Amino acid sequence: MGIVVQKYGGSSLSDADAIKRVARRITEAKKAGNDVVVAVSAMGDSTDELLDLADQVSPMPPARELDMLLTSGERISMALVAMAIADLGYTARSFTGSQAGVITDSMHGEAKIIDVTPGRITEAIGDGHIVIVAGFQGVSQDTKEITTLGRGGTDTTAVALAAALDADVCEIYTDVDGVFTADPRIVPSAKKLDTVTFEEMLELAANGAKVLHLRSVEYARRHFLPIHVRSSFSELKGTTVAGSIDDEARLEQERTMEAPIIAGVAHDRSEAKITVVGVPDKVGTAARIFEVLADAQINIDMIVQNVSAASTNKTDISFTLPGADGKKATSALEGIKAEIEYDSLTYDDKVGKVSLVGAGMRSHPGISAKVFKAVADAGVNIEMISTSEIRVSVVVSETEVDAAVAAVHTAFELDADQVEAVVYGGTGR
Amino acid sequence: MGIVVQKYGGSSLSDADAIKRVARRITEAKKAGNDVVVAVSAMGDSTDELLDLADQVSPMPPARELDMLLTSGERISMALVAMAIADLGYTARSFTGSQAGVITDSMHGEAKIIDVTPGRITEAIGDGHIVIVAGFQGVSQDTKEITTLGRGGTDTTAVALAAALDADVCEIYTDVDGVFTADPRIVPSAKKLDTVTFEEMLELAANGAKVLHLRSVEYARRHFLPIHVRSSFSELKGTTVAGSIDDEARLEQERTMEAPIIAGVAHDRSEAKITVVGVPDKVGTAARIFEVLADAQINIDMIVQNVSAASTNKTDISFTLPGADGKKATSALEGIKAEIEYDSLTYDDKVGKVSLVGAGMRSHPGISAKVFKAVADAGVNIEMISTSEIRVSVVVSETEVDAAVAAVHTAFELDADQVEAVVYGGTGR
Repeated sequence: MGIVVQKYGGSSLSDADAIKRVARRITEAKKAGNDVVVAVSAMGDSTDELLDLADQVSPMPPARELDMLLTSGERISMALVAMAIADLGYTARSFTGSQAGVITDSMHGEAKIIDVTPGRITEAIGDGHIVIVAGFQGVSQDTKEITTLGRGGTDTTAVALAAALDADVCEIYTDVDGVFTADPRIVPSAKKLDTVTFEEMLELAANGAKVLHLRSVEYARRHFLPIHVRSSFSELKGTTVAGSIDDEARLEQERTMEAPIIAGVAHDRSEAKITVVGVPDKVGTAARIFEVLADAQINIDMIVQNVSAASTNKTDISFTLPGADGKKATSALEGIKAEIEYDSLTYDDKVGKVSLVGAGMRSHPGISAKVFKAVADAGVNIEMISTSEIRVSVVVSETEVDAAVAAVHTAFELDADQVEAVVYGGTGR
Repeated sequence: MGIVVQKYGGSSLSDADAIKRVARRITEAKKAGNDVVVAVSAMGDSTDELLDLADQVSPMPPARELDMLLTSGERISMALVAMAIADLGYTARSFTGSQAGVITDSMHGEAKIIDVTPGRITEAIGDGHIVIVAGFQGVSQDTKEITTLGRGGTDTTAVALAAALDADVCEIYTDVDGVFTADPRIVPSAKKLDTVTFEEMLELAANGAKVLHLRSVEYARRHFLPIHVRSSFSELKGTTVAGSIDDEARLEQERTMEAPIIAGVAHDRSEAKITVVGVPDKVGTAARIFEVLADAQINIDMIVQNVSAASTNKTDISFTLPGADGKKATSALEGIKAEIEYDSLTYDDKVGKVSLVGAGMRSHPGISAKVFKAVADAGVNIEMISTSEIRVSVVVSETEVDAAVAAVHTAFELDADQVEAVVYGGTGR
C-alpha cells in the first residue's frame, strides 16, 4: 500500500459542488488501497478577492500581514474538503502548512521550502485518516512567522510533501487534460503529451507554460519524483513529467532518432522590454547597469547589446524583465543616468516571448534557423533572440504572439496527427 | 504607560472603510501613550457565510474541521486591521489565537480558555508594535488542535488577554452605546447605564442581553478586571462593568438607600418549553428525567413541577431549555417513556422569558409581587416563574414578550428621566 499525493487547484474547488466532486475522487484513491495526502489551493477566485480587500485597506500592505491574510484562503478550502470527505463516510484531517511541517525561509510572499517535517501527517495516516494540507503556505524556520510560496505555490507544496513522504506519485489535478504542444486556445490542433522530461518541463514553465509551476518541477527533478498532470474534470490519463534528457535510455533513443525532437511551443505575454539608448562604450558600463537592477531585486531575462556605432562610440542595451517590475527598473536606471551618461530609456510592455522547447534539438543543427524562418514567413518581426541547449526563444510584438506560436507549431509538425508535446494550463496557485 | 485591550466585533468591521475607521481609533489609543492590544471578530456576516458553505458541503460537518474553517474569518480581519494600521504610519503585528498563546480545552466549537501565555504579544509590544489578535479561537492544550470558543467568544478573548497582560482596562467596542435598562428597540425610553456590577451583568447576559457574552463577564469578574462597553461609531462614554454587589461601598449605599435597586429588564426569545404530562408521582422519577437530559448535554433553565393530583397520583413536569436543543431533548425523553410510564410530551417553542435584574432587590421585599402585578396588569399570562437573589424571571407567550418588558420597565420607573440600567446589544462574536 503506497502513498499517493494529489493536488487540486482553485479552478477544481470553485464551489460546494466542485468540492464534493473532488472529495469523491479523493475517496476513490483511498478505496483503491492507497494512503492519500492532498494539497489544496484556495477556492476559485478567492485569493484575488482577498488581494482586492487588502488593496482597499492599504496600497502597500506589509508582506507579513499579506501572507497572514492570503493563507486563510487555503484554510477555508481544506476544511471544506475534509468535511465533504467525512460526509462520504471516510475520516479526514486538515492541516495548515505550519501544522503539516512545511518549513520555509522568511521571505514573505515568495518563501522557499527548506524542509518538510511531516510528523502530524504520518501520524494521521497511521490512524487511517485521509490528510488534507493547505497549499501555498508554510512557517519560517527562524521567525516562526506564516509565509506563502508565491503564485503556483500549491504545486510545490504537493511535490514537497510527496518527496518527504516518499510517495509513489504526485498527481497534479487541474482544469486541462495535461501538458500540450501549445496553448490549445491559440493552436486548436495542439496535442497532449504523454510524457515530457523534467528539463523540457522546466524550460516550458520558465517560458510561459502555466500548467505547472516552475519551482515544483525543479523540486520534483531534484527528488526524482514523477509528476502526473491531469484533469479533475475527466478520467483521462494526463501527462507524466519524469526522466532526464541525460538518461541512458533517452540518449539511446536520440541516437536512433526515435525520440521526439520537440516538446512544444510556450509563450509569455507578461514580459516587458527596456532599452537603454546611447550608452558610452566603456568597460564596466553594462556591468554597472545590471548591478543596479540586481540590487533592486529585478530578474532580467534576455539581454541584447547592439554593436557600437563607430562614429559615436555609443551603443544600445536592451533587456526583457517581468512587466510587473517595469516601474522599479526604470526608476533604478534613472538613478544612474548622470553616472553612466546614457542618452535615454525606452520602455515597451507590449511584447511577448515565443519559445520552442525540446531535448532533441541538442543533436539537431538548424533548429534556430528554422524557427526564425517560420516566424519571418508569418510576417512577424523578431525583436530579440535567446537560446539555451534545449530552447530557442524570440521576442515579438504582443499582438503577433499568436501568429508566431502557430507558425512555429506548424513548421515543426506538432499539429495533431503529427508528433507530440506541450503548453498551457490553469492559473491556480 | 499602561496596556489597553480593545475588542471590535463584526459589525464594526463590516468592510474596508469600517476597518480603516477602527484602525484610526486604535492608533489614537497608541498616540495617547498606551500599549494597545486588540481582539477582533470576523468581518460582518462572514462567519454565517462560512457556516453556509459548510452546510452546503456536509449536513453534519466534523467539529474539528468546522473550527478550522471558522477561524479563517478572524485571520482575515486581523490581517486587514494590521494593514490599515500600517497605512497610518504605525506598525502592527497580527497573531492567531494559537500564536497569541490562547490555550483551551479540546471541546471543539465551545472550548474554554484554560491559560494564556502571551510571550509573542509582550515581545511585540516591547518592540513598539500594536498587537492584533484573532478573537474567538485558541489551541487545545492536549491535542494541539485549533479550537473555537463559541458565539461571543471574541469578548472572552479580549477579557482573557487583558487579564493575562494585567491591562488597565478592557474596552469592548460594539454597535450600541453601552448597556441599557432594556432593549431600546422594544422600549424606546430605555436608558444607558453608566455602571453595572459583574453580578448584575451576569444575570442580564444569562437572561438574553446580547451586548456582552456571559463567559467574558464571568472571566472579568474572576480577575477583577473592569470592562468598558462602548460604541465604535461614536466618542460617547459607554457602560463600565465593574465592582461586586458585596463591595463594602455598595453595601453601604444599599443601607443608605442610595443605590439603584434595579439594573434593567432582559428578555430572551430563544427558549422553548417542554412539559412531561402525567408523570407517576414516585420517588426518583424527576431525577431520572433530568439525568437523561443531562446525559444528552442539554442545559435546562427553569423547572416547574405541579402539585400532584390526589385522585390520579400523577403530576406534570415543565422545564425550559434552549430552542436549539428541542429535538434532542424530546427524543431523549421518548427513549424513557416505557420506563417512566408518563402519558405524553408537549413541546412549545413559542415562549419567551422576561427577567428583572438588580442587586438592590436583595434588600427590598415585594419585588417579585410587583413584577407579577405589572405583567398581569398588561394582560399577559405568566406560564412559569423563577427567581434568584438578584433576579425575577417569568416565562410568557413569545408574542407577549414586548408588552411584558415594557410593563415591567415602566413599573420600576426605569424609563428615561427615571432611574438607570440595561439590556441589548450586537450579535457579534
